[in-house]
This record gives sequence, structure tokens and C-alpha cells, in this order.
Amino acid sequence: MHASTINAKTSKTEERERLVAEMEAELGTSVNDDLEILGTSPQDIVTNLKSRKEGWTCERVMSVYIRAACAAHRKTNCLTEVLFREGLTEARAKDAALAGGEKPEGAFWGLPSSFKGGYMTGLAYIDTFNVLGVDTSLGCTPHCFQRTTEPEMEGTLVKLFRAQGGIPFCKTNIPQTLLAFESANPIFGASSNPYSSARTCGGSSGGEAALVTLRGTPLGWGSDIGGSLRIPAAYSGCLGLKPGLGRWPGAGQRPVAKGFEGVRPVVGPMARTVDDLTFASKSMIDAFVENIANHDFVQVENVVPLPWREPSLPKRMRIGYWLDDGVVRSSPAAVRAVREVAAALEKEGHELVLWQPPNVAEALKIFVALLSFDGFKQLLANIGRDPMEPAMFLVTLGPRLPGFARWLVSNLVSYLAKDPVFASVFTASKRKTIEEYVHWVHQRDEYTKAFRRAAWQEEKFDFLLCPVQAVPALEHGRTKDLSPLALSTILFNIVDSTAGVLPVTRVDAERDAAPANYLEGSTGSWILEKKVYGGDNPAYDSVKMAGLPVGVQIVGRQFEEERVLALMKIIEGAVAYEA
Amino acid sequence: MHASTINAKTSKTEERERLVAEMEAELGTSVNDDLEILGTSPQDIVTNLKSRKEGWTCERVMSVYIRAACAAHRKTNCLTEVLFREGLTEARAKDAALAGGEKPEGAFWGLPSSFKGGYMTGLAYIDTFNVLGVDTSLGCTPHCFQRTTEPEMEGTLVKLFRAQGGIPFCKTNIPQTLLAFESANPIFGASSNPYSSARTCGGSSGGEAALVTLRGTPLGWGSDIGGSLRIPAAYSGCLGLKPGLGRWPGAGQRPVAKGFEGVRPVVGPMARTVDDLTFASKSMIDAFVENIANHDFVQVENVVPLPWREPSLPKRMRIGYWLDDGVVRSSPAAVRAVREVAAALEKEGHELVLWQPPNVAEALKIFVALLSFDGFKQLLANIGRDPMEPAMFLVTLGPRLPGFARWLVSNLVSYLAKDPVFASVFTASKRKTIEEYVHWVHQRDEYTKAFRRAAWQEEKFDFLLCPVQAVPALEHGRTKDLSPLALSTILFNIVDSTAGVLPVTRVDAERDAAPANYLEGSTGSWILEKKVYGGDNPAYDSVKMAGLPVGVQIVGRQFEEERVLALMKIIEGAVAYEA
Repeated sequence: MHASTINAKTSKTEERERLVAEMEAELGTSVNDDLEILGTSPQDIVTNLKSRKEGWTCERVMSVYIRAACAAHRKTNCLTEVLFREGLTEARAKDAALAGGEKPEGAFWGLPSSFKGGYMTGLAYIDTFNVLGVDTSLGCTPHCFQRTTEPEMEGTLVKLFRAQGGIPFCKTNIPQTLLAFESANPIFGASSNPYSSARTCGGSSGGEAALVTLRGTPLGWGSDIGGSLRIPAAYSGCLGLKPGLGRWPGAGQRPVAKGFEGVRPVVGPMARTVDDLTFASKSMIDAFVENIANHDFVQVENVVPLPWREPSLPKRMRIGYWLDDGVVRSSPAAVRAVREVAAALEKEGHELVLWQPPNVAEALKIFVALLSFDGFKQLLANIGRDPMEPAMFLVTLGPRLPGFARWLVSNLVSYLAKDPVFASVFTASKRKTIEEYVHWVHQRDEYTKAFRRAAWQEEKFDFLLCPVQAVPALEHGRTKDLSPLALSTILFNIVDSTAGVLPVTRVDAERDAAPANYLEGSTGSWILEKKVYGGDNPAYDSVKMAGLPVGVQIVGRQFEEERVLALMKIIEGAVAYEA
Repeated sequence: MHASTINAKTSKTEERERLVAEMEAELGTSVNDDLEILGTSPQDIVTNLKSRKEGWTCERVMSVYIRAACAAHRKTNCLTEVLFREGLTEARAKDAALAGGEKPEGAFWGLPSSFKGGYMTGLAYIDTFNVLGVDTSLGCTPHCFQRTTEPEMEGTLVKLFRAQGGIPFCKTNIPQTLLAFESANPIFGASSNPYSSARTCGGSSGGEAALVTLRGTPLGWGSDIGGSLRIPAAYSGCLGLKPGLGRWPGAGQRPVAKGFEGVRPVVGPMARTVDDLTFASKSMIDAFVENIANHDFVQVENVVPLPWREPSLPKRMRIGYWLDDGVVRSSPAAVRAVREVAAALEKEGHELVLWQPPNVAEALKIFVALLSFDGFKQLLANIGRDPMEPAMFLVTLGPRLPGFARWLVSNLVSYLAKDPVFASVFTASKRKTIEEYVHWVHQRDEYTKAFRRAAWQEEKFDFLLCPVQAVPALEHGRTKDLSPLALSTILFNIVDSTAGVLPVTRVDAERDAAPANYLEGSTGSWILEKKVYGGDNPAYDSVKMAGLPVGVQIVGRQFEEERVLALMKIIEGAVAYEA
């Protein structure tokens, strides 16, 4: 490890430890008195604080959540930037203002919230998750010690949260450069799953998912360009909503790399219940619509001033669902999760239709082709002299190989190993000429139209239901050569659908065991499926995974965030999942 | 001229002549009995037809507008595809259905409308202005005789117009490949200005502007990527609205070239009054919001389901205005038009603030740099063996010159002729590497944010008011080396603002004369300004231009179409302009 990385790592983790330990000493670590507040929803916390309910102060709520966040961090290593001192100061100021007769204004008044460590792969200086006073380090040495020093440099979402009275109090861990679904980097190390220290909490919004699941924050905010919010929610066992492009600040307004708009990331809320998720979504939408009307900062972004619309769902809904994406066979646990939700909805009188979406492998190929537009040059520039995390290996292998070697590898894979799916994705990963680049943008548009025509216009589905990923949370280090597993989430970034994730069951060692002939008849990627189900130490193992949460994806059309949340609420009430 | 061009030109113009002459013979050319219908607004036409008002039938309205369109075409050569026969058949069918007791449904029921000849520079097969039964030739031989044969291949906007009961009855002329503001091409020739046969009606929606102005259609539909709707409206003397990206179908959903999203075109209405423009906008918005709710064809596009919102303007508005864009000094006529509108609004109690937008030349440079992404390869592929129109010269010169020659020319221009503005734009016009391309997309985003921050957030302007272009309608052929004049309209495509155009006065030979010292103190482009005001035959000449309409641009924030129309309505009532 280069000296600069060692210095950054030492300095950042020592500072973090000092700030956490300081608070543990000051506020204690016992949560015995905290259970009432920890059991109160974010919306009720705000109501209680605003109404000065007996025993409720901003300082007390903040103290409770600082203790809870410290505990979650001790368990999972989920925090990066610690703003506890600032949070307490702000909380006390709010209490004083209220006592002084000031009217408490804003949907998030007095509410603490964490934010994901970063949003961009590169543009830290305008990152949507910039928070005043701390770095947006992205887990990369070159971005460490670059504090956000001006209030106007805060992310739009963070500014809005503050403008509505909220108090950011910590930031959470992410993968090196964010383009992976294990939250591990050379600066802060790896974050663990709330249910298993041997496993990842997912990524890129992994620290956020761990913290939310462990009740270390009332609400969380993650981002998603290919599953970065949904995968960690499913791995860790919380809920998340990936909105469509443009629906609220951070949802598609800022690229992951300078000038790259082939695939755009979105920001969304993470929470423990659908009501909390709905509260966060509605409050954020109301807040920015008002902000735009007042000629304030949000209008600089390309946000659609579409107000929150109370959803009304058809009495009998038509819902398309699938069990496999055609590239990697879904595990028995993932299949059971979808089947149980489908059965529950059918029981409530809805029409469930088993349906196969058009060529999902193509969506993955488009994603890889677009993201590698410059051979990951901008992405890798962030790393500086840091060692590359194993999870980055497959993502960046393609463009680093010279052309002939890539051709050779892809042909070997294609013809010898009989895995054209894997090969075609692999070869798409390389720097593009401008003509190649617009070709892939065009492919994205064509695929999107075909998908929407098939699902929404021809089938007239109200929603889609499908697995979040073929498998539940993987062991640390296992995503290294399994990054294509993200295709089940990537699909909805390519076609820009609203997609929510909620946990609906847990892995059962016996019921969810994969039989020896599980891959029989599969036409997917032989290479990937072998890694997941084959050999001595398969990635999927229902015994080792027993007890892990298993989620599903609920997918709606563009700008249907309200309706997706409404269906998630129905499902939440219909399945018996205990956090 | 290549034989294929001659064949296409002969065949297309003979067919057009046959279809026009046939109708003139059948329906006559006297408009004496047509004046009531020609003087009725589109919305009232629909109301009269639906209520079966005495003397009103779809056939009669269609016949009246066919006669009027023929007359407009004889005067300006504005038509390309002629659908009069189909229009009459459809009108009679509607009359029969109504007589048979069918309920007349749709905002455009029975209303004829023209559509611009095309929308794309290249993707004719998915063109937003595809109309069943005819070509979307784009004035290019390779696209001739490629009829739209399937209803589902019609443009989304055309489909919606039909679904609301409207009847497309003709299409109108455009520049070769659309990237110019003179509507002339080797197939259909040049279209003229309604007020002067020596002058262009503008482009690229030029035929549409001429037809609308001459009352040859109740409504028109044009498109705009850099002024293509606004410039012809101002040149010809009608009104037009350029919506923001995403506001309705055709507004930013389809690229001008496959996979190119650096600058996206939008579709907007053209009309003779603000009420007509508002009717078209509101009806189209209501129509697609309903279409999406019904899971119909619009949801395939990236349209924002933001319903029409009745606007309410502040009692005292704050409006920023400017007279010059800093690159080419505005003509006395253009300056007077803005000043008169500013004075009229001030008189009504509003606050008018003279303001200079940030570096408009930069917006032009970004536009040229992005549009030339592939060295105009896709654009020029449309032309085939057609001769290139003179208006295309400057647009495509840059990328055709080899690098050294371009460097030489630009340095000569920069250092010898002291025109760094012209030089920097010129050198930006070349094929890009992927890194250069994303650089320019990033510049676009940065410029947009800076502009919005300055105009809307810091100055808190409700609207902006400015010239449409430095000059009124130019003589045929004069845009050849004056294409950068479009920067006053290009600006609002780059920053994605809603922009409406309306004529407010006419050129006065004496009052609007440019004095000999008119360019004194100018820091703009010396090369361009000399062409406009210098020499024996300047492009601007108030005597030759006397009587030409002069318009202004009214600019609002994103998604403020309703408010922009509301201000246009106020201005329409405050100025004394007679069509």
C-alpha cells in the first residue's frame, strides 16, 4: 500500500474512532432508555418534537440516535464521516429556538438523518451528498481531506433536508469509486451485513443500509445507478425506493462522471417501513416543489416540479412477475420470495401473470458498454495510488486488456466455454469512439422502448414483481467475479422505471436448499452460474445463509413513485416479515 | 445535380403540383365565402363542429383550409406533402359519424392541421412528424419515397392529434437536413416569406411559419433545437412556443441523430394568437396525460406527466431584458421591439431590469461543439448525392477541413482579423473523441447552472425578454455565412428554458435605419457584424426590410409553459401589431 493511502487511512479512521469513542464516553452506550424513541417513526418524531411532547427534545432524539449509530457502527463498520458533535449543537439550538417562541417549520424539523458517503464516481466537488464540514471521500485517498467548506457546496438533497429542519449527523460507507456492490475501500475498510459479520451489507449504499436496518438512523439516503440502493437494502434487510430520473433532486440531475449521461444515477430514501419511505418521499417532493416556486436553489437542477399525488390503485391489479432474468438462475430463496408475494397478492384478488421480460442480458451489455465509455479513465483517476479493491476487478478488466487479448479472451469464453452471454458483456467493456458511444445510447433507447411497449402498453401491467438479485447477501469478497449479478437491478436503470425493494422473508436452510440438478435446463451464463451454485464453496448456500433477509422488487412506470409505494404498503401488510 | 436528385425533385414536385392543382380545380380558389371560418379560432372551430352549428361541417372547414393552404403555397412554396384528399375523406367520415349519432370526442375534433416536414436530421423512420401515407423526406433524396405505411409508425404527436379527432392535411417545407434557418432544399426548393418573396420565411420550421401566418392552417406544429421554431415564427410573423425538454411528446424524447443527446430538439405549436397557442398547448398536454394514464402509446416516450396548470402571475413581475447578445449587435428594429415591449410592461406596473446574460458566445460554442460530435457524419449521410445547400456551408466547413487547415484558419481569424469569438466557434466544429465529447456535455451543464443561478436564483426574475435574432427576415441565401446569428435562440436550448416568440412591430424604414457609426464600441464578432451592417449590400437594411414583422422572445424557467403563455397574452394586448 502506498504511503499516501496508509496516511489517509490512518488519519481518517483514527479521526472517526476518536469522534465515535468521544460520544460513547459522553453519552454512554446503554440504549435501555432509548427504546421509545427508537420505536417511533420519523414522522411521529417530528410531530412529537414540534408539539413539545413531554420528554421529547431535539437533543434527546439526537443523543438516542448517536448512541444507536455508534452501536451499529461497532457491529458493521458502517460510518465514514461523523457529525455527532455538530448534530448535538444543532439539536440544542433548535430546542432553544423553540423554547424562545420560534415556530418549528419543515417536514424534517429536528430529525437526524445519515447520508450515503458519496454519489459520484468522480465529481466529489459537486457531489449530491456533500455535507458541510466533512469530506466526500468516496473511499479514495485523492478525495480525502477535501472538506465541503461552503454551505452552497452542499448537495441539493442535503440542503433541502436542512431547509426542512433536518439535521445530518453522519455519513456512511461505500465501495471504492461506488461501482461495486460490496461497501469496502482502502480508507474505511469493509462494512458488514447486520445479520452476518462474514457477509457484505451490499453496495454502493451499503453503510447506509446497515445503519438503517440496525435502527442507527430514522431515515437514510442512498443512490442508485445499477442497483446501488436496492441491492444493499435487500442484502441488509431494509426498504428502499429508486425513483425515476428527474423525480426529485439528485434523481438524474448529476452525472457519475463529468459529462457522461448514458446512464444517470438517482437518489432515493431508505427506511424500515413503507410509511417511513413514503414520508421521506412525499416530504422531499413537497419541499423541492416549494423551493422551485420560491426561486431558490433547486431550480438550478433539472428537477420535474411534479407534486406528490395521492395514489389510488385499481381494485384488481394486473401484475407481471418473473423468477429468473435468464442470465443467472435465481436461488430457491429468491424464487420463493417472489412466489410468496405473488400468492399473497393473488389471494387479495389481483391478477398475477408469469412473464418473461425481453432479453435482460442486452440491458446488462448496454450498461457495461456505456459505463466503460472512456475505458473507466475518469473512474480510475479517483483511486490515485490506492490499491484496487478486488470488487473492481471484473468491471475494469475489459478496458485494461489490449484489443487482441480481449478478442482472444472473449472468443475463448464464447466458443470454448460456451458462454456467449458472459463473453458479449465482457467485450462491451472498453473505451468507445464517439460513433460507438452514440450507437450504445441508441441501443439503450431502443431497448427501453421495446421494454416499455411490451410491459406497459401491450401487457398493460400495473406493476412488475421480480427478484432483486439471484442471491441473498454474499460473503465479503465474493462479488469480485460476480458483478454481472447486478443485472436484475440494472435493468430498471436502463429502462428508467420506478423500483422499490422490501424484505419479505428470510433464507430457510432446508426449504431454500439448491438441489444438485438445480441448473438443469438453464440457458444462462454457465460461468456465472457455476460460481453461484457449483464447486465446493458455492456463493449460494442456504445453510450458511440461513436467516438472511430476502427481498423483492416492485416496479412501476416512470413517475409512479406514489403508486409503487402504495403497492409496497399492501405487500408489507400481506407478508409476515420481522426485522 | 445528380440524376437521382433530379428524379426525386421532379417526381416529388410534380406529384405535389398535381395534388394542389387537382384540389384547386375541384374546390375552386375563391375565398370569398371562407372568411368567417378563416376568422374563427381553432378552439371555436372545434366547438362549432361539435355542436353542429348551422353551416358548419368538417368537410366545409377542411375545404376552406385546403383553399387557403393552396393560396399560401402559391405565394410562398411552403408545402411538401399534400394530404388534401385524405383530409377531405376523413372530414366527410366525421360528418357522417356525427350525423349517425356518434359523440364527437377530442380537443381537436374535426380540426385540420399541418405539420412540419420532419423533426430529425436523420432518423426519418422514427420521425416525430411521420404522417401515415406520406414521406418524411427531410428534403433529401435518400428519404424520398419512404412512405409511412403503418399507423404505429406515425409520430407520437401526430397520433395524439388524430386520437383527439384532428385531421392532418399537409406537411411543410424545411431546410436540407434541418440544420439551417432557411427552408430550402434540392427537392422542394426554397420557401418564401409571407411579406417578401425575396426573403426567406426562416427555418427549419419555415414552411409551417409561412402557412400559419397566411392563415393556411388553423394551427401548426414545428420543432426547435436551436431556434428552428422561433426564428421562422419571428421572420414570418406568427407566434410559436418552444417548450422545455420533456413537457410533451416530441419535446426532447427523440434525438436528432441516433444516440446523440448532447442537445435535444423539442416540438411546439405555432399559431396566430396567444389564445390559439394556449389552446394547442393545453389540449396536447391534457391529451398525453390521459393517454399515459390509459397505458397507451405515449408512455413509451420520456414524457413528464405534468398536467396543465392554470397560471397566476405576480401582480408586479420582475423581468430581465437585454438588447444585445454580445456577439452581433442587434439591429435598430430588434432593439426597438424589445424596448417597446419593456415600456409597455413597465407602464402596466412591472419591474423591467436591463441585464446582461453570462457569455452567450459560450452557449453558441457549446452548441456547435456538441452538434458536430461525429463531424456531422450522420447529418451528411442523409444528403446522399444531393448538392449541398449554401446554408449548410458554415455549419459543416469545420469538420471537413483537416486539422492543420482548421488551426491555420482559426489563428488567422483570431490574430489577424481580431475575431476570437468567430474563431473559437469555428474551431469547436469538428469530430470529437469520447473525452472531448463528455467535456462539452460537462461545459453545457456548467453553463446551464451558471445561467439559471444568475437569472432565476440571484436576480429572481420572473421572466426574461430579449430579441429573437439580431435582424428580421434575411434575403434568400443570406444565412449562408450568418448561421451564428442563431445564438440568441440557441441559448435557450442549451439552458433548457421555455421560450415563446410573438411579433410586436414592423420594420420602419426611417426609424429603424442603422446609422453609419452603428457598430461603434461593439466587442462582438467583427466578421459577422460587418456582414450584417457593412459594405454595399448589408444584410440589415431598414429600407429593404420595411414592413417585415419583428418579434421578441419571452423566456421562462423549466416547465413554465403556462406562465410564458400568460405573459405573452399580456404583451399581445399591450402592443399594437396587426398581422
